[in-house]
Amino acid sequence: MNQTDLLKILEAVESGKLSPGAALERLRHLPFEDLGFAKVDHHRALRQGFAEVVFAKGKTPQQVAEIVRAMLQKKDSRHNILVTRASPEVFSAVKKTNGKTARAARFHPLSGVITIERSRETSGKGVILVVSAGTSDIPVAEEAFLTAHMMGNRVDQLYDVGVAGIHRLLEHRESKLAQARVIICVAGMEGALPSVVGGLVAAPVIAVPTSVGYGASFGGIAALLGMLNSCASNVAVVNIDNGFGAACVASCINRQ
Amino acid sequence: MNQTDLLKILEAVESGKLSPGAALERLRHLPFEDLGFAKVDHHRALRQGFAEVVFAKGKTPQQVAEIVRAMLQKKDSRHNILVTRASPEVFSAVKKTNGKTARAARFHPLSGVITIERSRETSGKGVILVVSAGTSDIPVAEEAFLTAHMMGNRVDQLYDVGVAGIHRLLEHRESKLAQARVIICVAGMEGALPSVVGGLVAAPVIAVPTSVGYGASFGGIAALLGMLNSCASNVAVVNIDNGFGAACVASCINRQ
Amino acid sequence: MNQTDLLKILEAVESGKLSPGAALERLRHLPFEDLGFAKVDHHRALRQGFAEVVFAKGKTPQQVAEIVRAMLQKKDSRHNILVTRASPEVFSAVKKTNGKTARAARFHPLSGVITIERSRETSGKGVILVVSAGTSDIPVAEEAFLTAHMMGNRVDQLYDVGVAGIHRLLEHRESKLAQARVIICVAGMEGALPSVVGGLVAAPVIAVPTSVGYGASFGGIAALLGMLNSCASNVAVVNIDNGFGAACVASCINRQ
Amino acid sequence: MNQTDLLKILEAVESGKLSPGAALERLRHLPFEDLGFAKVDHHRALRQGFAEVVFAKGKTPQQVAEIVRAMLQKKDSRHNILVTRASPEVFSAVKKTNGKTARAARFHPLSGVITIERSRETSGKGVILVVSAGTSDIPVAEEAFLTAHMMGNRVDQLYDVGVAGIHRLLEHRESKLAQARVIICVAGMEGALPSVVGGLVAAPVIAVPTSVGYGASFGGIAALLGMLNSCASNVAVVNIDNGFGAACVASCINRQ
Amino acid sequence: MNQTDLLKILEAVESGKLSPGAALERLRHLPFEDLGFAKVDHHRALRQGFAEVVFAKGKTPQQVAEIVRAMLQKKDSRHNILVTRASPEVFSAVKKTNGKTARAARFHPLSGVITIERSRETSGKGVILVVSAGTSDIPVAEEAFLTAHMMGNRVDQLYDVGVAGIHRLLEHRESKLAQARVIICVAGMEGALPSVVGGLVAAPVIAVPTSVGYGASFGGIAALLGMLNSCASNVAVVNIDNGFGAACVASCINRQ
Amino acid sequence: MNQTDLLKILEAVESGKLSPGAALERLRHLPFEDLGFAKVDHHRALRQGFAEVVFAKGKTPQQVAEIVRAMLQKKDSRHNILVTRASPEVFSAVKKTNGKTARAARFHPLSGVITIERSRETSGKGVILVVSAGTSDIPVAEEAFLTAHMMGNRVDQLYDVGVAGIHRLLEHRESKLAQARVIICVAGMEGALPSVVGGLVAAPVIAVPTSVGYGASFGGIAALLGMLNSCASNVAVVNIDNGFGAACVASCINRQ
Amino acid sequence: MNQTDLLKILEAVESGKLSPGAALERLRHLPFEDLGFAKVDHHRALRQGFAEVVFAKGKTPQQVAEIVRAMLQKKDSRHNILVTRASPEVFSAVKKTNGKTARAARFHPLSGVITIERSRETSGKGVILVVSAGTSDIPVAEEAFLTAHMMGNRVDQLYDVGVAGIHRLLEHRESKLAQARVIICVAGMEGALPSVVGGLVAAPVIAVPTSVGYGASFGGIAALLGMLNSCASNVAVVNIDNGFGAACVASCINRQ
Amino acid sequence: MNQTDLLKILEAVESGKLSPGAALERLRHLPFEDLGFAKVDHHRALRQGFAEVVFAKGKTPQQVAEIVRAMLQKKDSRHNILVTRASPEVFSAVKKTNGKTARAARFHPLSGVITIERSRETSGKGVILVVSAGTSDIPVAEEAFLTAHMMGNRVDQLYDVGVAGIHRLLEHRESKLAQARVIICVAGMEGALPSVVGGLVAAPVIAVPTSVGYGASFGGIAALLGMLNSCASNVAVVNIDNGFGAACVASCINRQ
Repeated sequence: MNQTDLLKILEAVESGKLSPGAALERLRHLPFEDLGFAKVDHHRALRQGFAEVVFAKGKTPQQVAEIVRAMLQKKDSRHNILVTRASPEVFSAVKKTNGKTARAARFHPLSGVITIERSRETSGKGVILVVSAGTSDIPVAEEAFLTAHMMGNRVDQLYDVGVAGIHRLLEHRESKLAQARVIICVAGMEGALPSVVGGLVAAPVIAVPTSVGYGASFGGIAALLGMLNSCASNVAVVNIDNGFGAACVASCINRQ
Repeated sequence: MNQTDLLKILEAVESGKLSPGAALERLRHLPFEDLGFAKVDHHRALRQGFAEVVFAKGKTPQQVAEIVRAMLQKKDSRHNILVTRASPEVFSAVKKTNGKTARAARFHPLSGVITIERSRETSGKGVILVVSAGTSDIPVAEEAFLTAHMMGNRVDQLYDVGVAGIHRLLEHRESKLAQARVIICVAGMEGALPSVVGGLVAAPVIAVPTSVGYGASFGGIAALLGMLNSCASNVAVVNIDNGFGAACVASCINRQ
Repeated sequence: MNQTDLLKILEAVESGKLSPGAALERLRHLPFEDLGFAKVDHHRALRQGFAEVVFAKGKTPQQVAEIVRAMLQKKDSRHNILVTRASPEVFSAVKKTNGKTARAARFHPLSGVITIERSRETSGKGVILVVSAGTSDIPVAEEAFLTAHMMGNRVDQLYDVGVAGIHRLLEHRESKLAQARVIICVAGMEGALPSVVGGLVAAPVIAVPTSVGYGASFGGIAALLGMLNSCASNVAVVNIDNGFGAACVASCINRQ
Repeated sequence: MNQTDLLKILEAVESGKLSPGAALERLRHLPFEDLGFAKVDHHRALRQGFAEVVFAKGKTPQQVAEIVRAMLQKKDSRHNILVTRASPEVFSAVKKTNGKTARAARFHPLSGVITIERSRETSGKGVILVVSAGTSDIPVAEEAFLTAHMMGNRVDQLYDVGVAGIHRLLEHRESKLAQARVIICVAGMEGALPSVVGGLVAAPVIAVPTSVGYGASFGGIAALLGMLNSCASNVAVVNIDNGFGAACVASCINRQ
Repeated sequence: MNQTDLLKILEAVESGKLSPGAALERLRHLPFEDLGFAKVDHHRALRQGFAEVVFAKGKTPQQVAEIVRAMLQKKDSRHNILVTRASPEVFSAVKKTNGKTARAARFHPLSGVITIERSRETSGKGVILVVSAGTSDIPVAEEAFLTAHMMGNRVDQLYDVGVAGIHRLLEHRESKLAQARVIICVAGMEGALPSVVGGLVAAPVIAVPTSVGYGASFGGIAALLGMLNSCASNVAVVNIDNGFGAACVASCINRQ
Repeated sequence: MNQTDLLKILEAVESGKLSPGAALERLRHLPFEDLGFAKVDHHRALRQGFAEVVFAKGKTPQQVAEIVRAMLQKKDSRHNILVTRASPEVFSAVKKTNGKTARAARFHPLSGVITIERSRETSGKGVILVVSAGTSDIPVAEEAFLTAHMMGNRVDQLYDVGVAGIHRLLEHRESKLAQARVIICVAGMEGALPSVVGGLVAAPVIAVPTSVGYGASFGGIAALLGMLNSCASNVAVVNIDNGFGAACVASCINRQ
Repeated sequence: MNQTDLLKILEAVESGKLSPGAALERLRHLPFEDLGFAKVDHHRALRQGFAEVVFAKGKTPQQVAEIVRAMLQKKDSRHNILVTRASPEVFSAVKKTNGKTARAARFHPLSGVITIERSRETSGKGVILVVSAGTSDIPVAEEAFLTAHMMGNRVDQLYDVGVAGIHRLLEHRESKLAQARVIICVAGMEGALPSVVGGLVAAPVIAVPTSVGYGASFGGIAALLGMLNSCASNVAVVNIDNGFGAACVASCINRQ
Repeated sequence: MNQTDLLKILEAVESGKLSPGAALERLRHLPFEDLGFAKVDHHRALRQGFAEVVFAKGKTPQQVAEIVRAMLQKKDSRHNILVTRASPEVFSAVKKTNGKTARAARFHPLSGVITIERSRETSGKGVILVVSAGTSDIPVAEEAFLTAHMMGNRVDQLYDVGVAGIHRLLEHRESKLAQARVIICVAGMEGALPSVVGGLVAAPVIAVPTSVGYGASFGGIAALLGMLNSCASNVAVVNIDNGFGAACVASCINRQ
């Protein structure tokens, strides 16, 4: 259920097709149903206009499939469903849940994302551009890309433009960077890309450090610290490898 | 010089009042003039539509005053000037620079911000709300508030609403939180406020950890980590005590 | 052997049924018997009124089974036996030890806890409530729940009430939170739940950070620091993932 | 206003001396009044039965004095007032606020605590014992001692009993340790004291690491980690140097 | 070749049985022979009177076997051979090297130590006592025990005497602790044992932190910091899990 | 009172000059007298044969002077008194305590050590050599030197022999390094000196990291880690800047 | 394409064999071709005169093979190809790419390096010497050795010369150390080797910390810090285990 | 005494003007003379061709002056003298030492460097370029600049070219960056500058992190990690704020 759905209910009330009591009941009923191990929060979509999301890591394939089924069975809801950090086993379990919609599920192995696209409505106002520094940052960039797409945004990408070959980035200054309303900037190692990108554009830059690197990269800490200390002032940061979170923030911004 | 100024130059060219060559010269001349110790980058205002900013810490009062004078002497520029992390000594030096405008400078001792307001134009589309957790977070909150104001935004505030007294925050849910287009959330200690705020709104939340706390707060690391790991997905983070940076990002967003 | 058992011995002495020398011998005999690799300390139950506990991690299935057998063979003892951090292999080995009692052992796979319940006596005065933030925190919450139960407490639970959906928690304010004599609060990621819970109740809150999360959660450090810096003043903290320890402390308190 | 006070109001309602509306008004009026820089939360005392507390660090002497005055002017309240981390300057400012009560304020220079004792009612059920390891831990121990006292507990102390001279501690096993209902255990350096104390008693132990030490004590981190990893299972931990917090938790427990 | 062997060569020179030139040749020949991947340093035994030692971790079974063979083929040497951190595969490879001596090799699976005992001469003056805190510390304690034994010391042990059950340790004060010339103290978790032991004896205590524990034990850092900050002044520390190193230092001391 | 003194008492008992009861009384009386803020433990000297030591940091000059006075007034004791980490103010206060002995106190400003030498008896068997890497390590080296001297050892020194000029150290291989029974090795920065020294001698090496250095030396952590990871196996480590502790351990060893 | 190749193109232009337009086209065409997942940057060889390099870790065998094929198909290029951090699977995939050259690929299992040598031209002016401390540092040393060789340098090696056996190093002072134009110094554990080597030579020393060690070596942090704090002033450091990077820097220097 | 001086002595021997014995005596006499607190190592200049250097921090003004005097009194030496991390007090003390040369000393207050220039000989082959990111990095950059100059190099500078304004840097690509034989790159905050610079040039880049920044810059750790993880492969790193060390390494390279 997203804000449009809610508006429909309210208009049904206004037009007399639905009694306030019945409306209330339906709204109250929505919040979260108890699956025993997790409360599926249908209100979150209401509150934030997001797609429904399941974080698969640490859950069994069966648990994920249960949650997805509950989401699919909700009558009034048509928003997209996104499962992140999923293994092929999780994907198999999800595919076996009920009916046609689940069979439309697609698996993106690089990032471990499962998408069930039910709405192609675009709610974001501009383009979100996902920029990444190296080949190994692509899994995180893909998670960001798919999340932003599933949340109703137009999304573009610019990959493998690390700062040690600065001309690669500069080449796209007009064609890509200047066109974006929000930029998601994914980088591991020294995490310098958001500073350079931030200095080239007027749009907000959401920086995602990745755990790519070795030795003193400390699983992404070096990149994280680099981004937090960015000398460009239009940069904000999310957690290491958190492509999903970056897309959520970017999506919020793009909807404003 | 901000984007409006630039447009004026370009229109002057279009209308024949300014030759392209002269326009080019003026534009090329702008970038940064060499003060010996620092290149004042007038282009940054152009690129990002921000006020001119001087980070005073680590500079002598004389250096800051020099930079401010260079900014004030630029004929075509009317944007606001902001000096952050300034001491009373820096303020005295700035006051003594040339003429009337500098005398209009105001000092905000809690946050160490100096403001020289030359334009009251509002370029942000909505309201930026600054929320803070405790009394001791106010200096950072004030830096964010003043920066956002100087960059042409309408700004509101909601202070002292830490999560251990959750009712204080909930009371303002409709009146303040729901009205904001962007929220800046300032908190020290465990840094839990952005998670709670993020869960209550659909707007993007820029979280600022503060170095307030003692012992295992480690100068703001606890709050920083808390915010990076926020379970609310519309939260992005800037550096510890970086009220200025949060306002820059919020301002970028609010202008989109 | 618990305090009641000890009292019986002493009363037997008082009434002449047991000579002081024999009593002394029995008491002295108790402390710990040498199994070669570990001294089973029967006195601990005496001192703290706890169930007998084996920490299985780092021990072979055979070592654990040996220790459990020694506990079971002790004639005077009837307190419950708890094995934590056990694998299915450990459970198999324990099941094969001597006789009926061991066959009553139950395995809880989510938390890796083995319980051998021999006494249903309730020694705690009130209810211990286990609150947890997310689905992935449940293993640690279950360890706390089972430990508190085996130590003779009435235990209740409230799961999946993270702070980004604060209404879920507030809903249970009267029915659950206000009824508890001690609260165990389990949370990963930013660890903000104890602060909010602590602000809502007058009871002591034992906070357990979990290693759930990724990136800058650093295996639970973010949650740990968040809890240590809690702005609620009725919160004390135990080690990361230490559901057992939290239940021990809660049990101590509940017996006072 | 503490729970007894609230009960009186409610009984006044019951007996007809106070109309529900008037009672409501009085209750609603209480929460927090806006002093501009800090919301004084009188409800906290209501919710947790604690004394009113001001954390002075990071506030100006004038701010602290203002907050204390607001507390003193509240007609219905008679609970004790505690100011922690205060300097002599703060104490001077507090002394100069209104009237007799403020003049009764006492300053404890070792711990920087200011006490204004208005009630000698004992609400805790047993004795809280404060144990400390070395001479240099005494400031933190004193903060814990005074806080526990001001919150209506009988408090005892046992200082300078570090584990390298284990006989000093064992000497007091019966006379002090065994008599306490809750133990607060304060130690710097390796923070080993709570493990030893926890092994000797059945009562809950609240451990407070101190920043005492040098080199690899890292301002209390060594002690903090030692306590979090305590092999005694009745130990919970609060923040470094947080004698106040330890006393709050202990007080919660002692009131149950 | 140890100091006694060297003395024999020198005496042979003195008595004319060996020409100085031949002696020089033999001595010069000894230092290290090139195996391509590692220089076997026979001089180390000379300099420090230690057994020959191979650190197996990070070497292939074949590499370890090669090194051991080179040690065994050295005619003049009769000192013991010790391989640490060995897997069963390494042991198999070592068993297959040349002749009778290698077949006398024994494997100690708990600690992964391989011993080839060729000399039972005792060169240490007193007893080295290995004390350990918990069952899981035994692998490290065994490495220390075997190393000390192979280096020609009388060694005794006292296991599972953690500080939370302080009476277990005190019981052995006279019989074990007071008899030792050097004490090796092995402990994980909070690492408090060396402080208590150090306070009970006049002998030097070599503390070995182990990586046993979970959560905030950080793989032994908590124990390491605890030991470095020990309030007992006769404690020195070696690296985490370094039972071998502790025994080397203890052996040096015991030989003085 | 040291071990010799104790022996005298016991011999007096044996010879009938002192009744067992009187001896017991004297011994029991010794342990620690309550000065209010610190228990002076005269037994420690008995147990460990050390000089009496006061750690002045964190104590007021008056507190230190009180403790020293209590030590001086003890009739049966003649051992040396050592105050570490003292300021000139502490020294003044100590000088003013009672009588002739206190006036013999000497202050060593580089290390902040105060010495009151009352016995010149040498109880150590060999020479303790203090080696240090750079000029700035001398304060810590001096603390070690004076402590070892006051505890009855012959002490020698070899300063400014850092590993970047390895020939300086090698020059003294025979004359100094080979003559020492125990070596204390003091170094900041990379802390490499103990590894090199340890490789050159057969004696035990007690390594003391110092907080000398800047940047990534992190107040001595770099040196500490270097020493803990020493590839020489006769090296054990004490806390950063802990010259006193190193001398205590060395003294223990030298007395064996 | 390296600088010599570029010169040939330019000379072809000069001599009229190639039109400027065609030259431009060829040069412009070179930069990076889009393989979808990675931009192969042929310009890097041009800019830095390096061999073509693929970092295999985090790429699938197929991805690596694709990149190598693209490099081999480039007509004008004859420089060496180096694949680092490759598994045997990657090697198999590379072997199967097109034609004779790929079949000339060699795999070095210790370091996981694949080399395809197409040019034996020596561009470095002097000898690069790779020095390593222990047997377990050899994989990193080999990566450095092979990289330096493939980049056109004469390379020599000196392995297993750790500082605890300082004479092994000193023996080669004249024959090896003094002959090198640049020294790469590889060491784990305490990382002391570069300080000693740096003190013996006038050439620049590139230090490579390795993750060899255990416990407090923290995966190479101890060695890294040791090297950053080196008391020898001709030492610069690269990332942990970064043998490749060290050889790149050394190669840059050797070409100057 | 530098290498040229040494050659002169040797030629004097060859030509019979100096007897070998006298030459030996002079050479042997040189190494280091004992000033009590520090061995002045005249050989270092010999070995490395560097200027004589005194690290003033942690030394008293008198100690520094003594060392400088010893350097000045050495007859055969004419190399430059450099004092780093000096205060004005140190400078005063140095000025007062003996004679004309000391009076030629100059103080550079920004970096705290004292220079005594006695030789203007240029021994470096090319230009060393010092690049810095921000105004606050200039003190460290100046230390590097002066050190490189005093060691006989031609030095150029390019300041205030941080990556958030990438065009400032690119502007100087041909005129400055491409001309340098070695580049020293000084940056605080995220430390991204060396990566960008390294990608633009073929020369080796010595990166110097500075402690400039706040919050999560952690006194330079963020910049340090960023540089160690640089994606440009011609970058090596020295310690935080170590402008001196960077210049030493650069000087070594420039002399090859």
